[in-house]
Amino acid sequence: MTVRDVVARNADSYIGWLREACAIPSLAGRPEDLDRMTQWLEARFDDLGADVRRLTYEGAPDAVLARMGGGPKRVLVYDHYDVQPVDPIDLWESPPFEPTIKDGVFFARGAADNKGDLVARLAALDVYREVYGDLPVQVKFLVEGEEETGSKSFEGIATRYAGDLAADGCIWEGTGIDHAGRPELVFGAKGLAYVELISRGLNDDQHSSVAVIAPSPVWRLVEALATLRTPDGRVLIDGFYDDVVAPSEADMELLRALPFEEEAERTRLGVETFVGGDTGIDLVRRYFFEPTCNIAGIVAGFTVPGASKTVLPKEALAKLDMRLVPDQDPADICAKLRKHLDERGFSDIEINTNLSMEHPVRSPADSAIGKAAVAAAHGVFDQEPAISPMMIGTGPMYPVARGLGIPTVSPAGVCRPDSNIHAPNEHCRVDDFLKIVEYTVAWLRAFAEDDA
Amino acid sequence: MTVRDVVARNADSYIGWLREACAIPSLAGRPEDLDRMTQWLEARFDDLGADVRRLTYEGAPDAVLARMGGGPKRVLVYDHYDVQPVDPIDLWESPPFEPTIKDGVFFARGAADNKGDLVARLAALDVYREVYGDLPVQVKFLVEGEEETGSKSFEGIATRYAGDLAADGCIWEGTGIDHAGRPELVFGAKGLAYVELISRGLNDDQHSSVAVIAPSPVWRLVEALATLRTPDGRVLIDGFYDDVVAPSEADMELLRALPFEEEAERTRLGVETFVGGDTGIDLVRRYFFEPTCNIAGIVAGFTVPGASKTVLPKEALAKLDMRLVPDQDPADICAKLRKHLDERGFSDIEINTNLSMEHPVRSPADSAIGKAAVAAAHGVFDQEPAISPMMIGTGPMYPVARGLGIPTVSPAGVCRPDSNIHAPNEHCRVDDFLKIVEYTVAWLRAFAEDDA
Repeated sequence: MTVRDVVARNADSYIGWLREACAIPSLAGRPEDLDRMTQWLEARFDDLGADVRRLTYEGAPDAVLARMGGGPKRVLVYDHYDVQPVDPIDLWESPPFEPTIKDGVFFARGAADNKGDLVARLAALDVYREVYGDLPVQVKFLVEGEEETGSKSFEGIATRYAGDLAADGCIWEGTGIDHAGRPELVFGAKGLAYVELISRGLNDDQHSSVAVIAPSPVWRLVEALATLRTPDGRVLIDGFYDDVVAPSEADMELLRALPFEEEAERTRLGVETFVGGDTGIDLVRRYFFEPTCNIAGIVAGFTVPGASKTVLPKEALAKLDMRLVPDQDPADICAKLRKHLDERGFSDIEINTNLSMEHPVRSPADSAIGKAAVAAAHGVFDQEPAISPMMIGTGPMYPVARGLGIPTVSPAGVCRPDSNIHAPNEHCRVDDFLKIVEYTVAWLRAFAEDDA
Repeated sequence: MTVRDVVARNADSYIGWLREACAIPSLAGRPEDLDRMTQWLEARFDDLGADVRRLTYEGAPDAVLARMGGGPKRVLVYDHYDVQPVDPIDLWESPPFEPTIKDGVFFARGAADNKGDLVARLAALDVYREVYGDLPVQVKFLVEGEEETGSKSFEGIATRYAGDLAADGCIWEGTGIDHAGRPELVFGAKGLAYVELISRGLNDDQHSSVAVIAPSPVWRLVEALATLRTPDGRVLIDGFYDDVVAPSEADMELLRALPFEEEAERTRLGVETFVGGDTGIDLVRRYFFEPTCNIAGIVAGFTVPGASKTVLPKEALAKLDMRLVPDQDPADICAKLRKHLDERGFSDIEINTNLSMEHPVRSPADSAIGKAAVAAAHGVFDQEPAISPMMIGTGPMYPVARGLGIPTVSPAGVCRPDSNIHAPNEHCRVDDFLKIVEYTVAWLRAFAEDDA
C-alpha cells in the first residue's frame, strides 16, 4: 500500500484525533484544560511508542517532549498545543470547541493554528510505521503551551533542556498553503519589539481653554512620533538599520521566483500604492527584508466620533510594533529608541518595554532538513512550492535556530490565507489535513534517505 | 431699608426659588422637563410684573423673553435655563436634582451654571421694586434652553427676534468670582472651531506584518498633525493668524492689572513651564489673546495598555479644538485647514466640520453697561474686580454683541473655580448667591443713573 492509500484508509481515525484535540479548550488562563491537553498528547505519543516526558518551567504550562525512532540523524519537530481566545464568540457559526465538519471543512478553534499540523504530524508517525516500519531517524517532538501568549518561557526551556533537544534539523510549525494552492516554506522569521510610548504632563484632564498656556502631552507624543519615521516608511531611529543584513544573491533568487500578485494584494488591502511606491522585486524585497515601525494603536482624551467635548488630555499612549529583521536585537532597538528620544529632548516620554519581544532569525535554506522539506513538497503537492527566505510575521524560532544552532524550516501546513486563524470560524480543509499527513511522511523519508 | 437689608430679610424666599429651579432636570433630550422649566420661569416673571413671551425656533427648546420697566434705556440680560448632564451620577454626594444645603453651600446640578445667576437676577428685580420702586430702565431677559449643547439655534433666534431684543447694553451670563474672592468681569469670548480629522486607507484592520508594504492611516494622520503646530504652540495652518487683532494698549493695561498667579497655576496644572516658556505679561497676553490648535482626542487601532496586539489599523481619528480670537472666523479657519492639508498632499484626510463652531467676539469695556457693571462691582464687593478683555472659554455671545451690535459684558456671578460646573457635586455658596442679588441691583441702579 502506498502512503496515500494508508492515509485514505485511516482518514476517519486521524480526523477523530483532530476532533479530540480541538474539543479541549487549551487556552491561556485555563490551567486545567492546558493540562488535559498535555495528557491527551502524552497518551497519543505513548500509543505511537514514544518516550514522553514533560519539560517544566516556572510560571509556564508544561511543554511535552516525545522521542521515538533511532539512527544517527535527529530531527526536532516544533508545535504548540495552546490556542487563541475565541472572542468575539457571537460570530462563530458553530461552537469553537465543538469541532464541526461542513462541506469538507473542519471548523474549530485551533483547527489551523496549530492543532491541524500537530495532529497531522502525529498521524504521519502512525502511517510511517505502517508503510515503512521503524523510523530510521530520531524524531523529537517539542510541543509547548505558551505560543499564543508570546512564548515567554520558550528561550528558557530551550536553554534548560538544550541537551535533550539537540538535533540536526528542526521542522517548525507549518507555514501554510497559499491562495493558489502552492505549499509554502520559510527559513526564518522576523522579530518584534513591541513598546508603549507614554506621554504624561498634567495632574488632570483640563478644560481646553487652558491649552493655550498648558503644554499638551498629546501634541508632545505626536511630535515625538513624527521624529521616528519618514512618510515612505524609513525608520529614523538613530542606528535602527545598523545590524540589518542585506539579502544575498541567493536570497534575491528566491524572491524573484516567489509568486507575489501585486494587483490582487492591492485590491485585498484596498490601497492604491504600496509603501514608498515600490513595485516588482523592490516591493518583494521590502516585504521580506525590511523592518518596520508601525503604530498599532494610539489613544488620548475624548474619542467619541461626532461629539465636541473640549478637553486638554493629561496623557497620551502610543503602541509601537517594530518588526525586526536579522540581525537586529529587540533590546538594542529599545535602547536606541530611548537614546533617540532623549537626544531630541523627549526624555519625558516613557517607554514601556515590558511587552512582546522576539529576535528575528534566519536559517540556511540548503541544510539537510531544508532540502528534505523542499524535495518532499515537490513530490507531494501538485503545484510548485513558494519558498521565502523568512516569514513576514514573528515566531519564537530564535532559541532553536540560533540559540541551539539547529537549521530550521517551517514547511507547508494546513493553514490557508482564509483559515481565519486568531478569528471566529477558524478552520482547515479536511483534504489539506490529509495532505499534510502525507507530506510529513514524505519529508521524514527524504530526511532519512538523504546522504548529507 | 438698604438693598443689603432687603436681600437678607428675603433670603429664605430667594433660596427657595433657587431650590425650585434646580429641582427641575432641564436637560437636553428631556422636552417635558425643559418645558416645565420655561413654565416655572414664566410664572416667576409674571409675578414680577413682566410681559412674557416664548421665542420659538425649529428644533430648539423655546427661549423665554420677559420685558419689564420703562424709560429710554434698554438692557438685555442673557441667561440659559438648561443644564449639563449629571454623569458620572455615582460621584454625587446628594442627588443632582434634590438641592441640598450643607455648611452654607448649595449643591445641585445648575446651582452655578447658570441657574444660580439666573435666579439671583430674578430676585434682584424683586429687591429693586421693594427698595426703589419701578424700574427706570427697560429690562429684557432672554433665557435660552440650548446653551449646554452648543446654542445651535441662538444665532437664528437672535436674528429672527432682533427687533424685540434691541438694547443699549447686554449683561451676559455671569463669569464668576475668582479663587481670591475677586469679582470677575469680561467683555468678550473666544470662539471655537471643533473639527475631526479622519484618515482612512485600508479595507480592514490588517495583521501588522503587512505594515511594511501597506500605507498606515495612523502614520498619515500623525504626519498631517505634525504640520499643524510648532512645539511652542504656534499654529502653522497657512493664514491662521491673518485676522487676529492684536491687543490694544488699553487691553494691555487691563492685562497688567489682572491678577494672575503663575506659581499657583503651575502647581494646579502640574506643569514645569507654560507653553513657549512664557512668564509674566507675555503669559497673560497669550492666555487671553492667542488662539490654539488643541488635540482634544485621538484614537486608532488597539489601545489596551500593557497588551501586545499587533495590528495595522485601517483608520485613525483626531479631534481638534481650535479656540479662536477676534476676528478669526470658524468657517474660514476650517477652509484654511482644508487648503493647508491639500497643499501638503493630505487631501485624503477627511475633515468633519459638523461639530461645534462659535465666533470669537469682543465688546468695548467703556460702554455704559460695561462701566455700570465695573462700578457696581467696586461698590458691592470687598475686593477689587478682576477685569479681562475676553474670557478664555467660549460662549454664544457673538450673535448679540456683534450680530445685534449690543455692547456686552459678562459680570461677576456665583461661579467659583471650585464650583464643579459640568461635574458631579456642582455647587454655589449661599452668600455668593445673595451677593449676586445685591450686585445685580447695583449695576441696574448704576446703569439707570449713568448719564452717558
